[in-house]
Amino acid sequence: MKNTNSVTVFAPASVANVAVGFDILGFSVDGIGDEVTVSLHEEKGRVEITEISGIVTEIPKDSSKNTASAALAAMIEYHRLPYGFSVRIKKGIPLGSGMGGSAASAVGAVVAANALIKQLGSPTLSLEDLLQCALQGEKVASGAIHGDNVGPCLQGGLTLVLPTEPMKMLSLPAPENVFCVLVHPDLKVETRHARGILKREVPLLKSTEQSAWLAGFITGCFRNDLSLIRSTMKDVIIEPQRAALIPGFFEIKNEVLSRGALGFSISGSGPSVFAWAEGKTLSEHIAQTARQLFQKQGITSQAWVTPLTAPGARVKNNP
Amino acid sequence: MKNTNSVTVFAPASVANVAVGFDILGFSVDGIGDEVTVSLHEEKGRVEITEISGIVTEIPKDSSKNTASAALAAMIEYHRLPYGFSVRIKKGIPLGSGMGGSAASAVGAVVAANALIKQLGSPTLSLEDLLQCALQGEKVASGAIHGDNVGPCLQGGLTLVLPTEPMKMLSLPAPENVFCVLVHPDLKVETRHARGILKREVPLLKSTEQSAWLAGFITGCFRNDLSLIRSTMKDVIIEPQRAALIPGFFEIKNEVLSRGALGFSISGSGPSVFAWAEGKTLSEHIAQTARQLFQKQGITSQAWVTPLTAPGARVKNNP
Repeated sequence: MKNTNSVTVFAPASVANVAVGFDILGFSVDGIGDEVTVSLHEEKGRVEITEISGIVTEIPKDSSKNTASAALAAMIEYHRLPYGFSVRIKKGIPLGSGMGGSAASAVGAVVAANALIKQLGSPTLSLEDLLQCALQGEKVASGAIHGDNVGPCLQGGLTLVLPTEPMKMLSLPAPENVFCVLVHPDLKVETRHARGILKREVPLLKSTEQSAWLAGFITGCFRNDLSLIRSTMKDVIIEPQRAALIPGFFEIKNEVLSRGALGFSISGSGPSVFAWAEGKTLSEHIAQTARQLFQKQGITSQAWVTPLTAPGARVKNNP
Repeated sequence: MKNTNSVTVFAPASVANVAVGFDILGFSVDGIGDEVTVSLHEEKGRVEITEISGIVTEIPKDSSKNTASAALAAMIEYHRLPYGFSVRIKKGIPLGSGMGGSAASAVGAVVAANALIKQLGSPTLSLEDLLQCALQGEKVASGAIHGDNVGPCLQGGLTLVLPTEPMKMLSLPAPENVFCVLVHPDLKVETRHARGILKREVPLLKSTEQSAWLAGFITGCFRNDLSLIRSTMKDVIIEPQRAALIPGFFEIKNEVLSRGALGFSISGSGPSVFAWAEGKTLSEHIAQTARQLFQKQGITSQAWVTPLTAPGARVKNNP
């Protein structure tokens, strides 16, 4: 008989927006993530955060404000689960980094709970169902329902999330031998703030231009056409408004592109930035370049080179 | 030796916007088009419209206002052609119909001139070069450079036009066994007017939503996924603003969708409307339904059922 005490899930960081697809496109990242351990709570319907550890501890334990517990509460409510859950979160994703930390905790929680109820013999939820629950968690953090971190964190890889009802995830083909360089400067940007500074209106001309870049980029992914990806991987709406939150952004961007990156933009709501580049050697070189340029601004940073096809949240162990 | 007196080109009508891709996406139509005959003019650098016939005769002959001659003037200027051209246009596309008539005349002219200079032994222009010239013609008609009629009319099929410099055409795969039902009510909408009523700003939320439909639609085309095309083939920005120009638009839309069409929207700037539907039988049925509903409004109309893979402009004969 399986041990049903608890399930631990690793939920990866993710890069949202991907320059061209504000609030709809993202991809999972390899090796960085949150670990969420879910066990049964004796009180049905109750969700309790019992421990927050790892590199971030200042996030709310209050169940109504924590993305993991909000996601689990939605799971219990929507699917009338006859359970309560205790949650331990080990944060591996820096807070306010634009690397999808709040989404990862929410996704980790629902994936762990789903594995737990499976062990208990209950019917499990589909990936689409888990998406809806995790989105309710994400809403607590960002104030808006958008799935561009939750989607890729849940299913892995380059993921498009459509605002159908219910929201729907689609996998897009990632170009071959292209890596993501993700650089996290030691700054903090609140998602709510980064959303708050965005103008609520977009000029029609800009909106049309951006739609062309998005359409060309997706076509480039399906055709594995790096030249097309290079010429379309741009953000003319969001990046110009948020770049000021990241010291030296345009200098780094210009340098990284001149070194051969396919594209460079802000990861989610920042301050992390990312590039796509062909081959691991160039990617490592670009990571170093970006870190040096942040250093020039007096900002320390960490960098990772990761494939675009990293898997989504998965059960890590079953202690 | 070939006869180099003149070349006649058939340039097809086209459906621009295709619901999801305002100003960037379009496809060519089978069997409806303009015929443009180009011959050498004795005066170098001169472009003269000598005849306009067919179903439309009230378009300007003045070379600076006619899309065909403006396109040819651009061709002579950009490529320093040592020629002048005389142009006869036989219009098969109704004026102000939203079926890409001005683009067709411009494209027909440059394709015919290109075939003519080939006969004369001059180096010919590439399709991309012809695109730039035809766009200059289209600009005269609509007051803006947008390639969503010119692109598909030139290369045929479902075509994405990117605002790179120079602009670039991409072919998208059309879903199998899907037809376009194109319905032209006997009303006239000036492109300039239909553009003029558009708000210059779009709410960010709408722009984001529309980008999701576009991304999903393109994914659906690449995957030949009709269900995905059905759930994403929408226009939440332009159609709501222009629908009022077309009496009974929403009634027709609802009816056509309830009969099984994959999508329904305005063709270009209207008043023509179009649907995509699976199979020829359903498409014919939808054509009839739409015509009957226009008739209920006291509006006569014509309808065509056409494949999504109709060829672009081609030399018709060489009299």
